[in-house]
Amino acid sequence: MPNPTNRQILLAERPEGRLEARHFRSVVAPVGEAGPGELVCRTILLSIDPANRAWMQAATYRAQVEAGQVMSGFTLAEVVGEKGTQIPPGTIVACEAGWQEYAVIPADRVRPIEVRGPLTHHLSVLGITGLTAHFGLLGIGRPRKGETVVVSAAAGATGNVVGQLARVHGARVIGITGSDDKNRMLERDLRFDGTVNHRSATLRKDLAARCPNGIDVYFDNVGGRVLEAVLPLMNLHGRVVCCGAVSQYDTGSPAPGPSGVPGLLVVKRLRMEGFIVLDSVAEWPRAEAELAARVASGELKVLEEVIDGLESAPGALIGLLAGDNVGKRMVRVGPDPVGRPSGDRPQKRL
Amino acid sequence: MPNPTNRQILLAERPEGRLEARHFRSVVAPVGEAGPGELVCRTILLSIDPANRAWMQAATYRAQVEAGQVMSGFTLAEVVGEKGTQIPPGTIVACEAGWQEYAVIPADRVRPIEVRGPLTHHLSVLGITGLTAHFGLLGIGRPRKGETVVVSAAAGATGNVVGQLARVHGARVIGITGSDDKNRMLERDLRFDGTVNHRSATLRKDLAARCPNGIDVYFDNVGGRVLEAVLPLMNLHGRVVCCGAVSQYDTGSPAPGPSGVPGLLVVKRLRMEGFIVLDSVAEWPRAEAELAARVASGELKVLEEVIDGLESAPGALIGLLAGDNVGKRMVRVGPDPVGRPSGDRPQKRL
Repeated sequence: MPNPTNRQILLAERPEGRLEARHFRSVVAPVGEAGPGELVCRTILLSIDPANRAWMQAATYRAQVEAGQVMSGFTLAEVVGEKGTQIPPGTIVACEAGWQEYAVIPADRVRPIEVRGPLTHHLSVLGITGLTAHFGLLGIGRPRKGETVVVSAAAGATGNVVGQLARVHGARVIGITGSDDKNRMLERDLRFDGTVNHRSATLRKDLAARCPNGIDVYFDNVGGRVLEAVLPLMNLHGRVVCCGAVSQYDTGSPAPGPSGVPGLLVVKRLRMEGFIVLDSVAEWPRAEAELAARVASGELKVLEEVIDGLESAPGALIGLLAGDNVGKRMVRVGPDPVGRPSGDRPQKRL
Repeated sequence: MPNPTNRQILLAERPEGRLEARHFRSVVAPVGEAGPGELVCRTILLSIDPANRAWMQAATYRAQVEAGQVMSGFTLAEVVGEKGTQIPPGTIVACEAGWQEYAVIPADRVRPIEVRGPLTHHLSVLGITGLTAHFGLLGIGRPRKGETVVVSAAAGATGNVVGQLARVHGARVIGITGSDDKNRMLERDLRFDGTVNHRSATLRKDLAARCPNGIDVYFDNVGGRVLEAVLPLMNLHGRVVCCGAVSQYDTGSPAPGPSGVPGLLVVKRLRMEGFIVLDSVAEWPRAEAELAARVASGELKVLEEVIDGLESAPGALIGLLAGDNVGKRMVRVGPDPVGRPSGDRPQKRL
């Protein structure tokens, strides 16, 4: 039987400027019951993503999160109840349960997971952020051997996988982060060919020095002034993969766009292309298997942080937006089912 | 024998702000002689293009035009002398003779023209601007039947062909210009489905009203605030063809980039792509034949202005940058060879 109470974290108030703890509120509600075709899902792990903040700003590729609602979020959950579905209790599913211990979800809105190794991997390298790296880099960026790939938020959940995958494909990889510690880790542990700190007063010069042959692919997670600094260094026929604009999410007044758009796009024949990984769901199983094989072979290292307790979620997101995280950040809401392999201890791992 | 003198117009001084007549100087030089592998070309028609102004700002896809040099420009010319080449005198060639009556040019830098109808068509619909419309719209924009195509500088040399071609391919076409007169002409004579004046205080609202189903393809000739107004109206998976940024050429202080880059590119999965028609020279003959057939069938109307006399060139360019032109603007520098068909009277034609 499910726990009779369901702790939830609501978005109490839409932030106008920076997100703060006071914008959230914790409540306890009863656990819902499954109607026909529905599942009761118990949250195990909650994904913390920059996109969570963007969802508060406006309708994007999904409806805006409104004040008073349970905060939205991607989750891994165990099915603990169902009514007239093909999904038996005990199944582990990826779903969007949001920031709560239990959620009632239509069976056609969950994706059963074939668990490979630690469950946490299904939110990191085998989850949405790893798949985002895979489809964005290989589908849009299409790096060729010997080309230079630059990735921003390079120590983040998506960025670190982008950089590692680009190296696997024979590219030279330069990472951009806001921290010298992260940069050292990328060069030492993930074998990036070089790094740049975006807080440097000489950002463009630093980038130029690390990219003596120019930039062929820029995987952009941040937008803003980093994008503006990269564009003049792009090579003819370069590709800019537009994955996110995290520099613009946690603010009430987004910056103007990067100068050089569209002038440099014409002169350098650049392609800038945005994408959302949810558009390629049909191709996920193949990509997931490919990523899992690279993890198993040691080609891909898994970078993740697991923080304990649903109540930690607001702080985890606020910190993420400030750039605190290294790798995929997630919150453990409930225990793994008994007997499952579990490497997801509440700590950072390499 | 060629005329023993060669009138030339030099860029006297690089403009810092707006281009003015004082930035040019007229001089008379001797006509050069062909060295081995070179041609002496007599200029017949000189193309006036927004890009002429961009070439003064910085190195682009070609070297910057420097003060003291003959002003650069695309031309149609007659070969009047040669030394050891396969190109006989009397041949009509497309070349970059610049703003002068005669030029000595290596034979491998000219393109002999198979003249079809009036010579002027080879600078307009069959020339670089027509080819630009063809390759940008069909290669990058790829409009499908029933989609909405928006084009800026829609009464310009490239824009009017883009709009007409998009209609031929079954798209709904909305043109943006800075003049109600031009807009009436586009709707009445070129059968655009609608138009918007970019000087309107309610530009975005006007555009939204003309594009009730959103925008699938935006062919951008202008950049700046028009691009910024278009982006939020783009449909999922829309394409922005980056052809030019004429709003930013005639100024010393370019505007910031469009807000919405890269955020809207991600949310709407947009592709923005720049191109230069000079990259696809190998495909020009097929495209030229296709365009000529559409002109012959009446599907494409030819919009051009021919202004008399090399001395008119500075004023013609300054006026072009202010938006005075309707269709392809060119300057007649010398007469057509005797006996050629010539419809290129010094007047605007539809």
